[in-house]
Amino acid sequence: MSRPISHLYAVILAGGSGTRFWPLSRELYPKQLLKVIGNRTLIQETVHRVRPIIPVERTLVVTGAAHVDSIRMQMDGPAGVRKDNILTEPVARNTAAAIGWAAAAVRRKDPDGVMLVTPADHIIPDAAKYLGAIALAARVAQDGRLVTFGITPTRPETGYGYIKVEGRRPLAGRGALKALAVARFVEKPDLKTATQYLRAGGYYWNSGIFVWRADAILREIEASLPRLARGLKRLEQALGTQEETRALERFYKEAESISIDHGVMQRSKRAAVIPAPFRWSDVGNWSSLNEVAKTDRAGNVRIGRIVDIGSRDSILYGENRLVATIGLKDMVVVDTADATLVCPKDRAQEVKQIVERLRLEKAPEHLIHKTVHRPWGSYTVLEEGPRYKVKRVTVNPGGRLSLQHHHRRSEHWVVTAGTARVTCGDRVFDLRVNESTGIPQGTAHRLENPGTVPLDIIEVQSGDYVGEDDIVRLADDYGRTEKR
Amino acid sequence: MSRPISHLYAVILAGGSGTRFWPLSRELYPKQLLKVIGNRTLIQETVHRVRPIIPVERTLVVTGAAHVDSIRMQMDGPAGVRKDNILTEPVARNTAAAIGWAAAAVRRKDPDGVMLVTPADHIIPDAAKYLGAIALAARVAQDGRLVTFGITPTRPETGYGYIKVEGRRPLAGRGALKALAVARFVEKPDLKTATQYLRAGGYYWNSGIFVWRADAILREIEASLPRLARGLKRLEQALGTQEETRALERFYKEAESISIDHGVMQRSKRAAVIPAPFRWSDVGNWSSLNEVAKTDRAGNVRIGRIVDIGSRDSILYGENRLVATIGLKDMVVVDTADATLVCPKDRAQEVKQIVERLRLEKAPEHLIHKTVHRPWGSYTVLEEGPRYKVKRVTVNPGGRLSLQHHHRRSEHWVVTAGTARVTCGDRVFDLRVNESTGIPQGTAHRLENPGTVPLDIIEVQSGDYVGEDDIVRLADDYGRTEKR
Repeated sequence: MSRPISHLYAVILAGGSGTRFWPLSRELYPKQLLKVIGNRTLIQETVHRVRPIIPVERTLVVTGAAHVDSIRMQMDGPAGVRKDNILTEPVARNTAAAIGWAAAAVRRKDPDGVMLVTPADHIIPDAAKYLGAIALAARVAQDGRLVTFGITPTRPETGYGYIKVEGRRPLAGRGALKALAVARFVEKPDLKTATQYLRAGGYYWNSGIFVWRADAILREIEASLPRLARGLKRLEQALGTQEETRALERFYKEAESISIDHGVMQRSKRAAVIPAPFRWSDVGNWSSLNEVAKTDRAGNVRIGRIVDIGSRDSILYGENRLVATIGLKDMVVVDTADATLVCPKDRAQEVKQIVERLRLEKAPEHLIHKTVHRPWGSYTVLEEGPRYKVKRVTVNPGGRLSLQHHHRRSEHWVVTAGTARVTCGDRVFDLRVNESTGIPQGTAHRLENPGTVPLDIIEVQSGDYVGEDDIVRLADDYGRTEKR
Repeated sequence: MSRPISHLYAVILAGGSGTRFWPLSRELYPKQLLKVIGNRTLIQETVHRVRPIIPVERTLVVTGAAHVDSIRMQMDGPAGVRKDNILTEPVARNTAAAIGWAAAAVRRKDPDGVMLVTPADHIIPDAAKYLGAIALAARVAQDGRLVTFGITPTRPETGYGYIKVEGRRPLAGRGALKALAVARFVEKPDLKTATQYLRAGGYYWNSGIFVWRADAILREIEASLPRLARGLKRLEQALGTQEETRALERFYKEAESISIDHGVMQRSKRAAVIPAPFRWSDVGNWSSLNEVAKTDRAGNVRIGRIVDIGSRDSILYGENRLVATIGLKDMVVVDTADATLVCPKDRAQEVKQIVERLRLEKAPEHLIHKTVHRPWGSYTVLEEGPRYKVKRVTVNPGGRLSLQHHHRRSEHWVVTAGTARVTCGDRVFDLRVNESTGIPQGTAHRLENPGTVPLDIIEVQSGDYVGEDDIVRLADDYGRTEKR
């Protein structure tokens, strides 16, 4: 087994809000928060993958306000990330700003800190090989190199940037692994150029996973993005002081929106690449699942309850319903609680247009799932009618919803698992499995899980308006002042 | 508008239990009970289509015990079929027995009765042309002819029987319509033979829709199926007497299982065919919807909430969820509450194998829908967990569930529409919208709709076992002694 590598920090970029994985991903629930394959979400998997070499106190996550609640929940527990290691960006400003902030934070903790920078939503099935490559990268990074992992192209892909290596001898190596100097980074090519690269060799896909010393990347930012560097210097001085929040607001207000690839890597003379010894996918759309997910003998990825006759090389994904397929070839079928997608694999990227159309129609399916996560747990809308709504509400042990009332609906709660502590007007009482209560319209109420197992209730809302925005919060454990 | 045709009866065969329309149809909910296109179910549409020429008192339905409750509900009301005109077969014995019984019943009502015999689950979009053809058929039938409608083949179909006409002059005609003598009925051909038929001309598909005098078909049954005829004679003598039920049981016990086509039509010398002037489909599987449903400009049948980019000639069917499709060609996508089907149109008939596999796995999706119909209304399972189940229950005005109790679950009811009259132990009380009650485990209870609008409740069941079979019926308005 691998052992922790001294001074190595993980910086996980979790700001993504991709829609290319719709209908599994939604605008408010992007790919990194999803269990795409296996029992962990992609961000949980990303943390878990490097845990053998990077301990919890050296794992940082950078995300935005929209996802920080979900990230906190998913990163909760000893295997996750400490709350004060989650860096919340006030606005999104692309990767240079995010990495700059993280680098400043790492250097403050450890002047010799080395950063593994990785997106939260990539899949790397061969964890051991990945860790071996990181170990070499961390060694090469000691010379001030900006190390990235290059993926050997298997097709003339036009969706990735490419890295051209210098033809000369390796900078370093370990066994079959080697680190090579980078000749140049190349923008996403057209199909003809991509085909030439594939034929010529010496070109790698840019994985977007980097290893470097915190001080090295800050130096390179200073050389290539002097304005961002000045902002970072001011921010760094404020870190850990009362001024931190204000400094962060100002930094993000002024920061230019540029990627680390464009802003720094393409201009650096210190870039190095390690051809990846591991399988990798950025899971850019449904068709890319083939590269990393297990397939059956006919080449199908089958996830969920699938009954199939004779399909080949297809992605068959059922979230909770039965999915029956016959004679499909190179197709994608994704069946979720409120939306189903069917398309040929080679048109999977057009899902973005579907989502765009739904956004224009203000259809909820582009934005949220039927299950919505909250700091205290989650709820799922089971059915909504003209004057009623039925939800399953799950409250985590110790979780407590806000003290609230509704103007236009009453609520009925039936406990189906765990114990509920109910506040209703002046009364506080406990309900056990099989017990129920009614909350009259306008009465202040609160639901709490005082137990050690999750609390499940069925909530039936009834009234002339049952929208989520009819909620008046009187007190809240999670500092929620707006309606959410 | 057409006017009623004297002595003409409709005999609607509604015994089918096809699975080829899965997942929309289920073993306990076949095609004739479904709204495939439009706002009526296929059997409602079948009755409605002939209503201008056949009044309600001359409309009969033959069905089996499994579907009689659903048929009764769907045929309820002035536009439907009278309860005593629904003939319930004790067992299924193919069409010769069903038609024989109906013929005996019609002759008893009217010695000059003429029968339009039609399956309950065909789609005929051009009703006026259909009625015109029936009028001609009824005239031709006066000579004792067995008249059928022949569909002009548009492809070398191997799934239908064919009718070869005699080349001579028409037996009768009206405008472009003509009735021709039949040379012979031909079994379902292989592809080569079907192609020859298509090229040769003079062959028609057998629609399975017939017009004949009741006494004529009984005479022909006597000639071709003497054993069945003897049974029918005994049955006919018992009709309207106390012996009827016993005679019916005996008739069906002894009746041979043979179709009217095999048993009578193929042997008759009095068969005639009217080439159909109307579009027709037996909706034999999903791909056949194209023949009769409206299509968009790209040739797609789109039913439900469909968001599509560039699909062509496909069947896109969404029951309640959003269905997004991209770039499909000649595909079938059917999305229902608990199961989704995706297959190429030319493999739609293999749905039978999917259903067979589900039956072997004892998966509920082959048998029932999430919504189950009952004599008093219907219920839909919204969610089922390890120790709970959530249902929406709809009770028709005047409807009343059985007085019952459960050994292993308690129930909680919240009224979301209408008024509920609740019996719980010794108490009887009314609940209005927004009100709720709890039914303790083991307590006798009953739910009734005393109002004039449908009653909707949300029922949360909670207990260590929430299966449908934990029900003890103490009294029931619908004579249900078994558990259902």
